[in-house]
Amino acid sequence: MNESRLKEILKDIQDGKMKIEDGVRLFKDFDYKELDYAKIDNHRQLRTGYPEVVFGQNKTPEQIEGIVRYMMQHDNNILVTRTTETVFERVRKITDQAVFNPIANTLSIRKTEFKKSANHIAVVSAGTSDMPVTEEVVVTAEIFDNDVKRYYDVGVAGIHRFYDNVNEIRKARVVVVVAGMEGALPSIVGGMVDKPVIAVPTSVGYGANFGGLSALLGMLTSCASGVSVVNIDNGFGAGYLASMINKL
Amino acid sequence: MNESRLKEILKDIQDGKMKIEDGVRLFKDFDYKELDYAKIDNHRQLRTGYPEVVFGQNKTPEQIEGIVRYMMQHDNNILVTRTTETVFERVRKITDQAVFNPIANTLSIRKTEFKKSANHIAVVSAGTSDMPVTEEVVVTAEIFDNDVKRYYDVGVAGIHRFYDNVNEIRKARVVVVVAGMEGALPSIVGGMVDKPVIAVPTSVGYGANFGGLSALLGMLTSCASGVSVVNIDNGFGAGYLASMINKL
Amino acid sequence: MNESRLKEILKDIQDGKMKIEDGVRLFKDFDYKELDYAKIDNHRQLRTGYPEVVFGQNKTPEQIEGIVRYMMQHDNNILVTRTTETVFERVRKITDQAVFNPIANTLSIRKTEFKKSANHIAVVSAGTSDMPVTEEVVVTAEIFDNDVKRYYDVGVAGIHRFYDNVNEIRKARVVVVVAGMEGALPSIVGGMVDKPVIAVPTSVGYGANFGGLSALLGMLTSCASGVSVVNIDNGFGAGYLASMINKL
Amino acid sequence: MNESRLKEILKDIQDGKMKIEDGVRLFKDFDYKELDYAKIDNHRQLRTGYPEVVFGQNKTPEQIEGIVRYMMQHDNNILVTRTTETVFERVRKITDQAVFNPIANTLSIRKTEFKKSANHIAVVSAGTSDMPVTEEVVVTAEIFDNDVKRYYDVGVAGIHRFYDNVNEIRKARVVVVVAGMEGALPSIVGGMVDKPVIAVPTSVGYGANFGGLSALLGMLTSCASGVSVVNIDNGFGAGYLASMINKL
Amino acid sequence: MNESRLKEILKDIQDGKMKIEDGVRLFKDFDYKELDYAKIDNHRQLRTGYPEVVFGQNKTPEQIEGIVRYMMQHDNNILVTRTTETVFERVRKITDQAVFNPIANTLSIRKTEFKKSANHIAVVSAGTSDMPVTEEVVVTAEIFDNDVKRYYDVGVAGIHRFYDNVNEIRKARVVVVVAGMEGALPSIVGGMVDKPVIAVPTSVGYGANFGGLSALLGMLTSCASGVSVVNIDNGFGAGYLASMINKL
Amino acid sequence: MNESRLKEILKDIQDGKMKIEDGVRLFKDFDYKELDYAKIDNHRQLRTGYPEVVFGQNKTPEQIEGIVRYMMQHDNNILVTRTTETVFERVRKITDQAVFNPIANTLSIRKTEFKKSANHIAVVSAGTSDMPVTEEVVVTAEIFDNDVKRYYDVGVAGIHRFYDNVNEIRKARVVVVVAGMEGALPSIVGGMVDKPVIAVPTSVGYGANFGGLSALLGMLTSCASGVSVVNIDNGFGAGYLASMINKL
Amino acid sequence: MNESRLKEILKDIQDGKMKIEDGVRLFKDFDYKELDYAKIDNHRQLRTGYPEVVFGQNKTPEQIEGIVRYMMQHDNNILVTRTTETVFERVRKITDQAVFNPIANTLSIRKTEFKKSANHIAVVSAGTSDMPVTEEVVVTAEIFDNDVKRYYDVGVAGIHRFYDNVNEIRKARVVVVVAGMEGALPSIVGGMVDKPVIAVPTSVGYGANFGGLSALLGMLTSCASGVSVVNIDNGFGAGYLASMINKL
Amino acid sequence: MNESRLKEILKDIQDGKMKIEDGVRLFKDFDYKELDYAKIDNHRQLRTGYPEVVFGQNKTPEQIEGIVRYMMQHDNNILVTRTTETVFERVRKITDQAVFNPIANTLSIRKTEFKKSANHIAVVSAGTSDMPVTEEVVVTAEIFDNDVKRYYDVGVAGIHRFYDNVNEIRKARVVVVVAGMEGALPSIVGGMVDKPVIAVPTSVGYGANFGGLSALLGMLTSCASGVSVVNIDNGFGAGYLASMINKL
Repeated sequence: MNESRLKEILKDIQDGKMKIEDGVRLFKDFDYKELDYAKIDNHRQLRTGYPEVVFGQNKTPEQIEGIVRYMMQHDNNILVTRTTETVFERVRKITDQAVFNPIANTLSIRKTEFKKSANHIAVVSAGTSDMPVTEEVVVTAEIFDNDVKRYYDVGVAGIHRFYDNVNEIRKARVVVVVAGMEGALPSIVGGMVDKPVIAVPTSVGYGANFGGLSALLGMLTSCASGVSVVNIDNGFGAGYLASMINKL
Repeated sequence: MNESRLKEILKDIQDGKMKIEDGVRLFKDFDYKELDYAKIDNHRQLRTGYPEVVFGQNKTPEQIEGIVRYMMQHDNNILVTRTTETVFERVRKITDQAVFNPIANTLSIRKTEFKKSANHIAVVSAGTSDMPVTEEVVVTAEIFDNDVKRYYDVGVAGIHRFYDNVNEIRKARVVVVVAGMEGALPSIVGGMVDKPVIAVPTSVGYGANFGGLSALLGMLTSCASGVSVVNIDNGFGAGYLASMINKL
Repeated sequence: MNESRLKEILKDIQDGKMKIEDGVRLFKDFDYKELDYAKIDNHRQLRTGYPEVVFGQNKTPEQIEGIVRYMMQHDNNILVTRTTETVFERVRKITDQAVFNPIANTLSIRKTEFKKSANHIAVVSAGTSDMPVTEEVVVTAEIFDNDVKRYYDVGVAGIHRFYDNVNEIRKARVVVVVAGMEGALPSIVGGMVDKPVIAVPTSVGYGANFGGLSALLGMLTSCASGVSVVNIDNGFGAGYLASMINKL
Repeated sequence: MNESRLKEILKDIQDGKMKIEDGVRLFKDFDYKELDYAKIDNHRQLRTGYPEVVFGQNKTPEQIEGIVRYMMQHDNNILVTRTTETVFERVRKITDQAVFNPIANTLSIRKTEFKKSANHIAVVSAGTSDMPVTEEVVVTAEIFDNDVKRYYDVGVAGIHRFYDNVNEIRKARVVVVVAGMEGALPSIVGGMVDKPVIAVPTSVGYGANFGGLSALLGMLTSCASGVSVVNIDNGFGAGYLASMINKL
Repeated sequence: MNESRLKEILKDIQDGKMKIEDGVRLFKDFDYKELDYAKIDNHRQLRTGYPEVVFGQNKTPEQIEGIVRYMMQHDNNILVTRTTETVFERVRKITDQAVFNPIANTLSIRKTEFKKSANHIAVVSAGTSDMPVTEEVVVTAEIFDNDVKRYYDVGVAGIHRFYDNVNEIRKARVVVVVAGMEGALPSIVGGMVDKPVIAVPTSVGYGANFGGLSALLGMLTSCASGVSVVNIDNGFGAGYLASMINKL
Repeated sequence: MNESRLKEILKDIQDGKMKIEDGVRLFKDFDYKELDYAKIDNHRQLRTGYPEVVFGQNKTPEQIEGIVRYMMQHDNNILVTRTTETVFERVRKITDQAVFNPIANTLSIRKTEFKKSANHIAVVSAGTSDMPVTEEVVVTAEIFDNDVKRYYDVGVAGIHRFYDNVNEIRKARVVVVVAGMEGALPSIVGGMVDKPVIAVPTSVGYGANFGGLSALLGMLTSCASGVSVVNIDNGFGAGYLASMINKL
Repeated sequence: MNESRLKEILKDIQDGKMKIEDGVRLFKDFDYKELDYAKIDNHRQLRTGYPEVVFGQNKTPEQIEGIVRYMMQHDNNILVTRTTETVFERVRKITDQAVFNPIANTLSIRKTEFKKSANHIAVVSAGTSDMPVTEEVVVTAEIFDNDVKRYYDVGVAGIHRFYDNVNEIRKARVVVVVAGMEGALPSIVGGMVDKPVIAVPTSVGYGANFGGLSALLGMLTSCASGVSVVNIDNGFGAGYLASMINKL
Repeated sequence: MNESRLKEILKDIQDGKMKIEDGVRLFKDFDYKELDYAKIDNHRQLRTGYPEVVFGQNKTPEQIEGIVRYMMQHDNNILVTRTTETVFERVRKITDQAVFNPIANTLSIRKTEFKKSANHIAVVSAGTSDMPVTEEVVVTAEIFDNDVKRYYDVGVAGIHRFYDNVNEIRKARVVVVVAGMEGALPSIVGGMVDKPVIAVPTSVGYGANFGGLSALLGMLTSCASGVSVVNIDNGFGAGYLASMINKL
């Protein structure tokens, strides 16, 4: 609420054009709206067409069903991450638009047409066992109306597939790189591609990977410039941030 | 080297327009050029006007002087990070364009006019003791010709300064948030600002901050979306990535 | 045993009013009584109306049933934490006063009237998945006859709900803040509310939260003053300490 | 700003009793004042007589001198923690009220009379090598006008000194316990004294104490109820919180 | 093989009383016997009456049954640690002397009379949930023919039970102290009892105990003298070492 | 593609012996072949007789069956590590050459004759509970046509079995040592045997072994020369590297 | 104060042989004496001839000089650990009996004749760089009047020196083993010698030894029985405990 | 001592050709000789021409000088690692053959002619700041008479230099790869080169590299086969092992 708008309102009060009650309501809402707006910015629940997202882990099927029922009242797309087939069974009784991705363990309900973006996001992954995380990136980016190109299984053992596609990947606006174990792939991608690289360490592995720690530390200490990192296994976070950058 | 260029060369060989020796040299360089190009993408040393960067830590003053002398042959700007006043004393004997930032411990040599970018980068920091890292972000972003706005000392104890400026900060294209100790600021910024947030944990603190670990883990597990993290104290990396996003 | 009582006893011995044997027994018990008192202070098992608490984890249903049966002989309230519905089934065969809280996994038996305290405790939590810990705080504080006000789900993504209620929360005598992941909420509460803040990190999360470590370190290194921390998931400890402060 | 005050202001505008410009200023300050108040609550810089605190670590003598000069304009007491004799030499040129505590490494400037509190704070420490932290607790509590009683060097090797004084310690309103190495003392105090215990782990020690980690984990997992923990070596935090509880 | 025995053998060879072949076999076994002796010292499998011990974890019931069948050929007592009721069911088909301790999860077969030792071992434990480890200490010490006295549940919350018995405990030759969480009990015992204290950290607990780490570090950094530590949950190791010291 | 071959091709183009289209295809494949070659080097999938390896963990039975079916088209041996009996049941419907090792949890399909190597690999292990890892070493080395000699269960408690065989072990070309807990065995072997030692830490153990960390750190800090380490439980890696060295 | 003494005192009161005032003083001191006795047991400061020990680290030369001056009033031997030559210079001005061990960094003042013990302690160390810790063990054990035999530099690289002396070492009553890096030596000693082994990890090393962590974890997870561990670099603790066991 | 030699000796005893005393001495020495041989194998101090190595860290200049003086009596080459110029100044007074490498901080004394090996070792390093470790590898390998080829500064930022030389590197018999920070280079080398790769993590870096931990974990979890790891900064260990493999 800028100064000119503020003057305007007070002028209206002074001039009797606005009732005191309306003024009170307006000012009482001042902070609220500001913060609801923040909330909107964050959850985007009220902007038409903007996806509404539910983090499914640690929520009961009942809770998720309840949240989805509530969300169904809006015209927004809906994304439930870290969910299960059981939840899907419940939800598709509410709507037959629900789609379950059994690799990403996501449930999406698309109500709007897919508006393909001008730019695209490249999603690069090291191995097939990283796919649950990689697919979470893709499902997230797509529900936010981004065009996504997959370059899977291009880790060290198949690094030539990365080099084969390096010129293709350079055309993306932002690159998400998913890798477990030593987490070396983002360094290589970051060294070859002059675009922002979002690195996602995965907990896939055993022994000295200590639940994703090896990949995480490797990515954080990457010698390549232009690389930043999200939490271990946080495919949603990477997809969300990639969408944000892709749409700048 | 695309297919049409390839055909052209072979046609020239076939037609005797190109000597076999030249062809051999050309194809021998094939990989090289490709990789030199990669090198260029990475080091940007040959693109005119693009800064050349030296990571000063663990390099002797002699080594840095040597590298800077070599770089002075190009028309690019030069940035030396993690350096000392001693190095600066040597370098300014080579050029009086050298500027030392005693807080960021950087040495910059600007040879090109500053081309202010249309968009700008917001750099937000939690406390005054984070300034060495914060200034490294700023110096880096500026040598890459970005317009930077500083919002310093807006941590928890002065969070109102953040709220005062939140609408200003929202106008930036990308936000770098620097914080030590609990590293909570990126979560708050990420929850209020709908722009990519690059979080930089600092090693400033004591006790359970364990050399920046507390801030690092806090930022990685941030509940806010749109936040990614670089290495502890990696101001250069954040400034570089912010520049990359700002110029997309 | 103060000096005057001591003199009195020795006088009785001297005067032959007390037999040496009784004196011996009395002095032999000296340490005991002192320490039983300590035990009372600690366990509060003998002060009428003071709750008796059982830490249920790692105890068999049989053991808990036995302990509860023994405790039922007193007129104190009883609280069993970290227990299960199975235990509850056994216990309600002993008494129909037993109440099971399926979120907190607590079992309470209230024998005394609830004596609402003059002051109250505010319990603030970041997300719905922290509820098992949060409810343990509440159940504990209530069995100790404290008035508790809940402010749930006011984490970063809904921080406006905290700001909406900040003046309400300021009226509490002590604030318990429960949060997982980056554990940033206590910093924010501590920065806005001039009351003791007890921070409870939770193990809720994934990846770099490492079983609650990220929240724990974040809370310990909080820049806000007036914040102290209990063990990860230790809802009972926080509720107990809050009760202690609330009743000072 | 409650609803009735809001109505009143708007009524004044409507009635022409208040100029629009004044109204604009008032509402523009709305958020500010609210937040400045928060700032006051936090920094207490404007409440007369309330100490102003500077965290001295990572600040240059110049910076600290500057801050102290600025603070000297108010009538508040001033506390600088983690500072040095060098800083003290500078500051006492400004004011001869400055007192340096060479054990706590604090600098205090008292401008108000000491108003002894009705209750007192007990500060208990395990060993003489914990004294820098313990004294920081004491200096902090005292500058906040609390009566403090010291019980030093009562660790395991001299636990009888604790038992000798246990009844004295029980009279305190809140107990701060400072210990390094295994950090066992807060468990013992918490088991014997029915008052809130604030535990401060110290980094004093060697080997498996890993910079205070052993004491920190020991205190967090304390079996005694009523114990909460602040950061390693955070004497100021403990003194501040103790003052807050002491004055409830 | 001592020198006199060596001379004897060589004399027999010289005198023709022993055939060269037998000598060869003897000397080829030289190392063996020496090492078997070491093995005996370690496993004690051949010394009559000395227990034979099997570490049951990670062994199949078939494997354990096989080992026990083999061991049954000697007259030694047998101890299987970290085993299950299933194994017990198999073993008692071989011998009805087998006894299963369902708390310690041990299986013992006693073939010799219990020879009560002149001295005794005191086993002190902090809480009831440490009992599986504590009982492993006791079962181990007893199968090695030591007299053991239990002092259970004397942790911080019931420390007076320790003080009540401190003079009794002082009569033991060696004290084993078992504790989880903050692991403070060995410090207290070590400070009061002038006998070797073997501390056993347990993995019992939650949160910041990190699988026994808090107790382990606490015990290692104990300020009391005369305390040494074995692996987390290593009741057998403590019982074995206590037996060794008790019999010196 | 060396220079002479390059000249030859260009000569053929010049001479019209090769069509431009063929040249284009050849040069387009240049990088590919190079990289496929790398791939071959890495995966060895196309070199006849060289084993093809599948890392079975995190792959569904369907996926593994599909991969094996595809691999069955070549004449190479096949090794699936970290697999299950369920997978084996599926695979032996495809081929009766499939052999399942229930200790190593490997599945091997040998199509070529075993070509015993001139040298051999010694595999030394500390205890029976390390056998799953040890057998993975052996199965891997054998499918790569190496002669392997096992020296099992020669840990500290049976170190004489190592000394008995030390001269035998010295005859091996490379020694793999598998150990959990304190991981001391590679130090001893490395100190006695003048051959490269590959140390494999295992996650077998409890308490302070922290999932193999104690063995890993012990092996890395080994005072003996000639010792290098692979990941915790990485039997395949050790077997593969041993094969590589054995065949140099 | 045993029962008979108690009866005696009360009898004296009854008989008028003791004044009530004296009785009061006596009983008021009851706890004290008991606890002073504990203190004596711990510090041994009053038992004639028993050494008095000062932990020198984190104490100023002034403090140590003061403590030593005080201790000089008794007839006990004095040991100052972790001290410096500077302290020694001060102390020898007080007494010319002071001896400084520049390897162990200890200062000892022997006032009593050395009473050689019947049994002896074997101190075994892995390498010369462990000598500061090893010598601290020896100096400690000797000031407590133990006969000590040194077996230095018998680590993996010189393990034969251990085997040469194994029969000698077996004659000791207790063995202290000092080792850094992988900390394997106690396992070997524990496997060969049927005596209590006290293992002392040292912080000597680099890289993955992480300040002694590798040696610590290795020793804790030792497969050999009869081994217990003290804190990293805690030579005093090991020497003290060895003395305690040696004198049982 | 093989069986035939054994028979021979006993035969001599039987035949009276050898005195019993001599036999006793012979058999008593049995273990000795075996173990001295082990010592020889380990230290190689007696094999003429084989280098004698001193680990210089934590040794005083006096100690090193003493050791070198002793070693000078043999005809072997001498290598002192982790030493200083000060030590060099002392040593070159003994011999002018001493050479100091100021990058590797090694001191070598070559007495024998360099016998260039048929095969060679490739030493690949990521960055210039890894040079102290890399040069330690080279100096070590060379003193052991290996031909070494350096490929420096070929990390991610200059990966093309690796690709340029990949065919050269493939000709080496064994490859040592030195890298800090994310430690990704060994994965890339291991994926492209079919030779044993010895990976050396370095402690060079800052922040989340935690003293070499990030590189160490990255190398251990490398997806490439044929890679094993030595301790952080252990250039000597890698050079020694490489020499061992190179000479197989």
